[in-house]
Amino acid sequence: MNDNLTVKPRRIETNLRHFARIGYSADGGMNRLAFSRTDLRVRQLLLHVMHNLGLTTRIDGFGNVFGRMEGREPGLPPLLIGSHLDAVPGGGRFDGSIGVTAALEVVACFRDSRLTPRYPLEVVSFASEESSRFGRGTLGSGIVAGTWEPDEILDLTDSRGFTLRRVLQRAGLDPTRVGQARRRPGDFLAYLEMHIEQGRVLEDRQAQIGVVEGIAAPTRLRVRVDGQADHSGATPMGLRRDALTGASEIILTVERLAQEAGNVVGTVGAARVDPGAINVVPGRVDLLVDIRSIAGEAKASVVAQLRAEIDRIALRRDLRTSIQILTDEEPVLLDRRVIAAFEQRCEARGTPWLRMMSGAGHDAMHIAQLCPAGMILAPSHNGISHHRTEWTDLKDIVAGAQIFADTALELVTNGVVGD
Amino acid sequence: MNDNLTVKPRRIETNLRHFARIGYSADGGMNRLAFSRTDLRVRQLLLHVMHNLGLTTRIDGFGNVFGRMEGREPGLPPLLIGSHLDAVPGGGRFDGSIGVTAALEVVACFRDSRLTPRYPLEVVSFASEESSRFGRGTLGSGIVAGTWEPDEILDLTDSRGFTLRRVLQRAGLDPTRVGQARRRPGDFLAYLEMHIEQGRVLEDRQAQIGVVEGIAAPTRLRVRVDGQADHSGATPMGLRRDALTGASEIILTVERLAQEAGNVVGTVGAARVDPGAINVVPGRVDLLVDIRSIAGEAKASVVAQLRAEIDRIALRRDLRTSIQILTDEEPVLLDRRVIAAFEQRCEARGTPWLRMMSGAGHDAMHIAQLCPAGMILAPSHNGISHHRTEWTDLKDIVAGAQIFADTALELVTNGVVGD
Repeated sequence: MNDNLTVKPRRIETNLRHFARIGYSADGGMNRLAFSRTDLRVRQLLLHVMHNLGLTTRIDGFGNVFGRMEGREPGLPPLLIGSHLDAVPGGGRFDGSIGVTAALEVVACFRDSRLTPRYPLEVVSFASEESSRFGRGTLGSGIVAGTWEPDEILDLTDSRGFTLRRVLQRAGLDPTRVGQARRRPGDFLAYLEMHIEQGRVLEDRQAQIGVVEGIAAPTRLRVRVDGQADHSGATPMGLRRDALTGASEIILTVERLAQEAGNVVGTVGAARVDPGAINVVPGRVDLLVDIRSIAGEAKASVVAQLRAEIDRIALRRDLRTSIQILTDEEPVLLDRRVIAAFEQRCEARGTPWLRMMSGAGHDAMHIAQLCPAGMILAPSHNGISHHRTEWTDLKDIVAGAQIFADTALELVTNGVVGD
Repeated sequence: MNDNLTVKPRRIETNLRHFARIGYSADGGMNRLAFSRTDLRVRQLLLHVMHNLGLTTRIDGFGNVFGRMEGREPGLPPLLIGSHLDAVPGGGRFDGSIGVTAALEVVACFRDSRLTPRYPLEVVSFASEESSRFGRGTLGSGIVAGTWEPDEILDLTDSRGFTLRRVLQRAGLDPTRVGQARRRPGDFLAYLEMHIEQGRVLEDRQAQIGVVEGIAAPTRLRVRVDGQADHSGATPMGLRRDALTGASEIILTVERLAQEAGNVVGTVGAARVDPGAINVVPGRVDLLVDIRSIAGEAKASVVAQLRAEIDRIALRRDLRTSIQILTDEEPVLLDRRVIAAFEQRCEARGTPWLRMMSGAGHDAMHIAQLCPAGMILAPSHNGISHHRTEWTDLKDIVAGAQIFADTALELVTNGVVGD
């Protein structure tokens, strides 16, 4: 089978627009929090589109949606393709949606060309990929891959204090059956995901497609710095134990260590200053630190150096510090045969591509535990994501969807091959 | 007249306790916001105490309370003594109250010894000294001294959106008559104030009394740092324009410049990080900077150097910065004849004292525009103020009140003398 699939820009644009219609407004951005009313509505739309494409649909115990096209040979595992449709509050129209849209487009292309693949094809939309609602992301794919047991996550609460358990019930799911969503190694031929980059690397390097080498799951720390709150006018510099000047040294240390490591990014994204008044020397500062790399050792080394530096800063400034590990995930390297397949398709189509790491977490990092997994990224204008102004050009989505379809065709025809 | 006055610890303790009873609770601290119900109630108590001491009371157009004891020679200007009784929410029992209490004690001592001073004596409690309600402090004394025209402050609003104008009306004052509170140079012989230190210098140096050389009115800046919000995982270190790392350099620069200057204190008391999420490189940071000195030139030099350093940091990091001057007050040097009088009385009594600057603003800085003014400070346990745990030992308040009484006696007997 050396046929080609050709994606249709207008169909892609229409599907994206239809998805965006549910929850998006130009001033408020995307309002489609996991398991919200709009999230359940977009799921209905997805089921409708899947039915129109002739897919057999299924909603698993966690609300992940699958649409299956049978292959020519019974009993072969399906190629899984997709992403997610939930969104951060006020987010954009592209995050997640372009991956589901591209996956649907692959099926539509098979229909156009009246091809039946050798392996089955399953389009998936994973539930609750964003961490906005329950403080932890990629829940649906994590349940499928067995990263978490249901009991580890069912008591997570949202901002209104509702547990995930209750939210699932209200969405018509039975929390006691969440575990049934779990799948096993061998259940899938492979997993392909397409997503927006959420960074500026592709734009900066003028590439249309990022082929993801690995997903740099973060180590996240809460660093608390305790000094002493004092009157800003009445306390000479020499008598101070200023938590904010100490915290500033820590912030700059995170930056320096990441720069020195080269293949690590380190960010202090939040700093809460207490009491936070103009006339009070800060007595306490809480920092949230995020360190990522696709090289586990490099990341661990930066974290270890940071700990040592924090101790030194605290000693010199007579501060007390404490470090709480919030997350410490292992980076995930994606399958090099799938990476090679993506890159060969890019070369064949003349599409400018770049091999890169994904700094953002994605469903692929869990599904990679079950089967060979691969991902491609589409450029984000100015790197903006999780914001109503998030933008990816249609031409880039189309180019990505074409590579996605080409690679899917390759895999459902020949399986995952290579050494 | 070479008589002595001897303050009575129990009377001081009783008055302080009675004042504290209105609004103070051990868990909630002092609840006596300017012009609140408790503030008006403590004013009634003050009037009652003044009447019991035989003082002639008067409330001026801004709600400042005066209690007058006539002197022997008609037509001489009065010695003004006192402080304030309003408090920051959740504050302590000593801030302001010990000054009013000490002033009442001076009058009580005159009554005890049946002395009539040559100059009249006026006890004052200035209204709205704390900035907690209207964002600007020392309002009552500022109106008396003509630092502000009534129109400059009557439209200030509190956290509920009520204007000062309306609040005054509800407190039974006529906003159109605020200007009548203004006094002229020559109206007072001198002004003496006693206050808690709100810092740790006296405790550190084991002195019981701080004789204030000058009041280091602050220069306050809002520094805005604009970078670019980016995904923390998806943005390599080299592509970032991180507002928080830039802000950290500014925070450390404030500290360094103040340390180098020696007679300047510099504080960044607040930092607001936007968007402030663990997975987003900060796009904007707002800093509140407070720089103080009793040496105007040294302070101006630090501010100028800081501006230059901020420009350099912004250029190097490709950030945009803007600096808004919130306050730029001139330091106030207090009257050296009054300072000398305080210090001679400390020496005469063998009370350990220290000449120092006041980093906190006080009513004395305004009244110093009308007449010779002087201030003494009492030690604050561990430097804590504006908090329910604020504490000054009774023995230190008594020692201060004694020096306050001795100095008042000297001034109402001989006037302000010296070169």
